[in-house]
Amino acid sequence: MERPPYVRLNFDSENSGRSLNVDQLVSVIKKQIISNTHFSGCRLPPVRALSHQLGVSKNTIQTAYDELRAQGVVESKDRSGFFVSGTAEARPFAAPINVPGPAFKNISYIGYVKPTQKNMISLSSVFVDPRILPKEKLTACFKSVLKSPGIPEFNDPQGFLPLREKIATRLRDRGMDVDASHIVITNGSQQAIDLVTRVLETKAIATEDPSYHLGKYLFEMNGIKTIGLPIDPFKGLDEKVWQDRLAENRPGLVYLTTNFQNPNGYSYSSAELSKIVQWSKEFNFGILEDDWGGEMLSYSEFKPGLRAMGGKNVLYLNSFTKKLLPSLRIGYLVANEKTIEPLLMAKRTSTSSTPGIIESVLFEFLDRGYYDTHLKFLQQELDIRYDNCLKLLRQYMPEDIKWTSPGGGPVLWIEFPRRIDLEMLVARLSERGVSVQLPTTAFFGKPHSHGFKIGYAFLSPSEMEEGIDKLSQEIRRQI
Amino acid sequence: MERPPYVRLNFDSENSGRSLNVDQLVSVIKKQIISNTHFSGCRLPPVRALSHQLGVSKNTIQTAYDELRAQGVVESKDRSGFFVSGTAEARPFAAPINVPGPAFKNISYIGYVKPTQKNMISLSSVFVDPRILPKEKLTACFKSVLKSPGIPEFNDPQGFLPLREKIATRLRDRGMDVDASHIVITNGSQQAIDLVTRVLETKAIATEDPSYHLGKYLFEMNGIKTIGLPIDPFKGLDEKVWQDRLAENRPGLVYLTTNFQNPNGYSYSSAELSKIVQWSKEFNFGILEDDWGGEMLSYSEFKPGLRAMGGKNVLYLNSFTKKLLPSLRIGYLVANEKTIEPLLMAKRTSTSSTPGIIESVLFEFLDRGYYDTHLKFLQQELDIRYDNCLKLLRQYMPEDIKWTSPGGGPVLWIEFPRRIDLEMLVARLSERGVSVQLPTTAFFGKPHSHGFKIGYAFLSPSEMEEGIDKLSQEIRRQI
Repeated sequence: MERPPYVRLNFDSENSGRSLNVDQLVSVIKKQIISNTHFSGCRLPPVRALSHQLGVSKNTIQTAYDELRAQGVVESKDRSGFFVSGTAEARPFAAPINVPGPAFKNISYIGYVKPTQKNMISLSSVFVDPRILPKEKLTACFKSVLKSPGIPEFNDPQGFLPLREKIATRLRDRGMDVDASHIVITNGSQQAIDLVTRVLETKAIATEDPSYHLGKYLFEMNGIKTIGLPIDPFKGLDEKVWQDRLAENRPGLVYLTTNFQNPNGYSYSSAELSKIVQWSKEFNFGILEDDWGGEMLSYSEFKPGLRAMGGKNVLYLNSFTKKLLPSLRIGYLVANEKTIEPLLMAKRTSTSSTPGIIESVLFEFLDRGYYDTHLKFLQQELDIRYDNCLKLLRQYMPEDIKWTSPGGGPVLWIEFPRRIDLEMLVARLSERGVSVQLPTTAFFGKPHSHGFKIGYAFLSPSEMEEGIDKLSQEIRRQI
Repeated sequence: MERPPYVRLNFDSENSGRSLNVDQLVSVIKKQIISNTHFSGCRLPPVRALSHQLGVSKNTIQTAYDELRAQGVVESKDRSGFFVSGTAEARPFAAPINVPGPAFKNISYIGYVKPTQKNMISLSSVFVDPRILPKEKLTACFKSVLKSPGIPEFNDPQGFLPLREKIATRLRDRGMDVDASHIVITNGSQQAIDLVTRVLETKAIATEDPSYHLGKYLFEMNGIKTIGLPIDPFKGLDEKVWQDRLAENRPGLVYLTTNFQNPNGYSYSSAELSKIVQWSKEFNFGILEDDWGGEMLSYSEFKPGLRAMGGKNVLYLNSFTKKLLPSLRIGYLVANEKTIEPLLMAKRTSTSSTPGIIESVLFEFLDRGYYDTHLKFLQQELDIRYDNCLKLLRQYMPEDIKWTSPGGGPVLWIEFPRRIDLEMLVARLSERGVSVQLPTTAFFGKPHSHGFKIGYAFLSPSEMEEGIDKLSQEIRRQI
């Protein structure tokens, strides 16, 4: 360390905000320095600093320092100030004493895979291709907010009220009973799940098997038991198994993704949603509905989901992030007048509030009608990519491979016969520049489906053709 | 509900992504509709939508719908489509069935008080006056980032690497052993405390009494016992009491604010920090150092804090928010190579990542040297406000009132004789347009100090004079 460190002194013990005299200063400083042998060599506060801090003249401070030097407690070096005297054995202050580390839970980091790896075709990304996201319109909204009203200074922890009002209106149009006061703006859908998890009383949550893995990890890191409710990407939910598991485990909450469940790609039918609502009454569980994918599907006339069918005790979450730009990180959670307070407190104690300018920009984007225009464009673009993907699959895939047909949106599921070695398939594809995410850890135990998701929203038609061509070649090598 | 809702159907159960014929379509739809009496009146997907979803001709869909109509399962109305047939008693789909709400912990929302209430002088705000914050320079950095490189598309959950490198360099200059890979960018200092709380194994955390209240609430909402370590704003820590409490309760973590503790305003002396580091080894606790206030003090030469003195097992957090603009919400947590992984996982499962543009703008702000220039300006401005505040207190306050002299920064503590009724004082001041936050709930039990903080960073000298004048008048009415 080139610069000797500066020793912090406390002068408040002997005064009351009023002036100290020389004798008092000498006594206070001496007491604090002498008690610690390893302060030797450290600098005292500069005269001007202490004079300013205590509101006394520089002359008083200088006199006190001179007295300390006369007593041998401090030394002065050239013009660089006063330093604590000491012996050669004294521990140098700047070398840290190693204290014990805090004991952390045994949690390993699930490596984050950047969706855009150089020269790789990401065949199972759940993201939308940034080339079809409204970066220019978002930039225009940023510029407009910066110009007027400017970057907000303070912000409402619940979220910018005009933004919450816009969202409430949209949801009411989709058949939900929602008021702006029931909504809390979040850092994407992940924080919405987190806020609910933090305030839940239950120690058991049921969710789809395969599950959204960051949701499942979140529950488990919070000491909550997770119960898997098997979803087959083709046949949907198995009534008998769900009913038995719900009756046996009595979860306090069921967390479900209405549309394009990740990683399954499944969207519930009205018959299934109706069944779930009935079970909620029968087995007395709360519902958290994740609707991140609903707005990506074209022809999206009013199709009731769990909040619309189960009333306003159903917690509902959605996000703008994937549909606008992943790095924006903005979504929302809808509760009701009874459940909003604990959720707001959870937000204040976790992140305090959402960056104000992101909220203002999103409001501007909605207010200008950009969001609706963009959704229409996005849905049409995803329709083209979906059609192309279906066409390619029909063209390239061998007989006994099957896939789902969700009708658009971001992803579908492809299922292989058990004799296909998926690990080997993925390794081979990786060598050929195609990356696939095997959802092995998303299952509760042994995977009951043998496949993965194909994300057509992320790839251009030509990239998709290259990906599916190589996939089919590698499959044919195995059969 | 004007528009009849749309019934979601699952077509994947019977096909494998290949074409369905009319008979298959009729059978699948019938099965799902007939099982639910309360779908009557609901719309079937439009012919064009189903044709697109399944990749079959519109003619096939139309023929299937006609067959369903012939069987009496659906009805067609004018040209508006096909609807599920039903009886008068059928429950209308759009009226929600009220499901039970999830059981939440009994947490009440601590009402958020906007720091800028109209026509009120906030005498004890911990914020910095937005009039002296660098809004224009931040706006310039936003514009520059928007122009090039543009709004980021994806972002690193750990935080933008160039930003983390800038921060690491700053901290190394202040005597800390830090690498960019040890840092995680957070949504302000609150999220930094939260990330640590989420992964701790301990069920006991010690912190200052009075405590930073949103920290204490956070610990307690997570089922962690909090132990109060009394700090007197004048005399600092009481060695005997701290030692006894630490020995008796054996907390796994001690959370302390090195400079300008909130609400106490206290900054630890080097002698005290050294003692804390020794206790950490003796009683085997981890340390979380909160340094939000350090950079606000002028003459801030290298003054070692807990991370510098205790080595890199000490967790360190800081934030840019208060010093730049409260609504930005950006700060960081520093761990080390062993402790970073669980913290990153905590971030991914709670908020996933920090909005990318905020990280890029902050990097730009640091890279242009604006942050150092601003800190110098801010410190000088706070020095002026501190001097003025000291001058006013000496001028207006009756004899037996005392206050601390921290030397600058944002706040000091004012202490009253016990005979002053603080509740009444605050009520009277509120009527006269001066708001004061009594930190009653920040104490562990009965407050051992009888006062509150005065935030000179938030008020202009003339506002401060009005506030202190009225405060002194109300005190004199009581003595």
